[in-house]
Amino acid sequence: MSNTRAIRLGSPEEYTQLLDQYDTWMFDCDGVLWQGERLIPGATEVLRMLREKRKKVIFVTNNATKSRKNYKVKFDQLGVEAHVDEIYGSAYATAVYISSVLKLPKDNKVYVIGQSGLEDELRDEGISFLGGTDPQDCTTTTPFSLSSFTPDPSVAAVICGLDTSITYTKLSKAFKYLTLNPACHFIATNQDSTYPSADGLLPGAGAISAPLRYALGKDPLVVGKPAKTMLDCIKAKVHFDPKRTIMVGDRLNTDILFGQAGGLATLLVLTGITLESEISGPNPSPIVPDYITNSIGDFLVAA
Amino acid sequence: MSNTRAIRLGSPEEYTQLLDQYDTWMFDCDGVLWQGERLIPGATEVLRMLREKRKKVIFVTNNATKSRKNYKVKFDQLGVEAHVDEIYGSAYATAVYISSVLKLPKDNKVYVIGQSGLEDELRDEGISFLGGTDPQDCTTTTPFSLSSFTPDPSVAAVICGLDTSITYTKLSKAFKYLTLNPACHFIATNQDSTYPSADGLLPGAGAISAPLRYALGKDPLVVGKPAKTMLDCIKAKVHFDPKRTIMVGDRLNTDILFGQAGGLATLLVLTGITLESEISGPNPSPIVPDYITNSIGDFLVAA
Repeated sequence: MSNTRAIRLGSPEEYTQLLDQYDTWMFDCDGVLWQGERLIPGATEVLRMLREKRKKVIFVTNNATKSRKNYKVKFDQLGVEAHVDEIYGSAYATAVYISSVLKLPKDNKVYVIGQSGLEDELRDEGISFLGGTDPQDCTTTTPFSLSSFTPDPSVAAVICGLDTSITYTKLSKAFKYLTLNPACHFIATNQDSTYPSADGLLPGAGAISAPLRYALGKDPLVVGKPAKTMLDCIKAKVHFDPKRTIMVGDRLNTDILFGQAGGLATLLVLTGITLESEISGPNPSPIVPDYITNSIGDFLVAA
Repeated sequence: MSNTRAIRLGSPEEYTQLLDQYDTWMFDCDGVLWQGERLIPGATEVLRMLREKRKKVIFVTNNATKSRKNYKVKFDQLGVEAHVDEIYGSAYATAVYISSVLKLPKDNKVYVIGQSGLEDELRDEGISFLGGTDPQDCTTTTPFSLSSFTPDPSVAAVICGLDTSITYTKLSKAFKYLTLNPACHFIATNQDSTYPSADGLLPGAGAISAPLRYALGKDPLVVGKPAKTMLDCIKAKVHFDPKRTIMVGDRLNTDILFGQAGGLATLLVLTGITLESEISGPNPSPIVPDYITNSIGDFLVAA
């Protein structure tokens, strides 16, 4: 299929054809299945239909503040069927990357800029860590000093996700670990510039790693969409045929790019970040999905 | 003078010639006059000699955590003669930029990411501000929420300097001001990636504005070296002839670039950030000063 122009789904036959064509359906969540606390109309029914048709359903989210178990609670609260092993969050994928790809020795530690969901996933993978929600690192002190800080020589990686308790202490300790030991790995859960919160758009995980990128003059290895690391993590855990897999998302530069980089088909929905004007306006995005539909609920016509 | 190769000063005659050639001497401070709390040998005597020869002496620092008055205390403690009106810090230059160039109406406010020295300079220029050292914005709360935040419609600029009490609250409020009002000015005191502290190199002011740059996809107006805004501020306050002015600094990408951008002669000293190898090694920096000397103390041979 050519990627120069997206197919806008319309007739029931087109939706039915897509359902026939793809066995594995990967979904971004916020902006696709729900918007904040509000379900997208029809999302539950479409997911149920996919399960009835024996499709494999996988949820792929860049949210690194939640563990898969935290995320499952969100699905439960909204009444959407999901199983922990179908959920791939960037916190989980980061922990899997460290344990399965980097294979850090068990007596090594990672220094964490991030929240409890990320810590939970590290713990589940048996990875020791410092920083994170440690009150000492989450508290701002004036005047600032690192004089009581002795770098732990077993720290072999710094990981950085969204952290609403970011402090200069955390940034400085992370900077020290990365400069004192040039072999120390620098890993970002994801690079989203913003994320949709109850307070509207706010700076995302990419903004939290930005100070280190700038101070070090060096980019981190990125785990979350659109990076391939996330797909490698899914591949390591579940079998799917990329040719018969479709990625459904609301964001061109994360979801759609992620699907394209992995050789998957891509479907853009317009219930989230991307606006109609970014596709069909005078300056359309160079990232062109294979298919476009207004909402995931549109698939109900194929039921 | 050609900028393709630096002249390495050596003989007493060369130092004397430079003293004859330039009437105004601009100095970076840390790495030139002192290293942390330690005076560079001969610095006091060379400054005294310049004053005896009726040279104009100006101190130009990117440190935005100190007001000029705070900075004068540092000179006093080290026993170096300096007067408040000879000191140009990026906090002061930022306040002057807002009052004299932007000419913000007096009933407008600025939102501050920065420390008390920056607040002092704003106060001296009669600029009202929010954020900064306000304990409410310097405290990390879990879970994070902006629900009690009502943006102040009189905020017309966000300014961002080094802030060791940076919080996600400050970043989020600044982000809201800059996105809710696209005309809101985004100003950085300086863009230094790191700075030398008592704890060694730590992330600098450029690292503190990096989250906003990344989340907004937009660069701030930069005041400090190497930006021209700093020189414009000095020009507005003191008369000097660029052709008879020399900038002395230890950092190629701030001090030397700053001098070159302003049409000043430049002298690199090797008592700070820049290493000999960056000048004469196999991959020399493309930024070439007019002159190089090991230390400012070398000028004593011309006394």
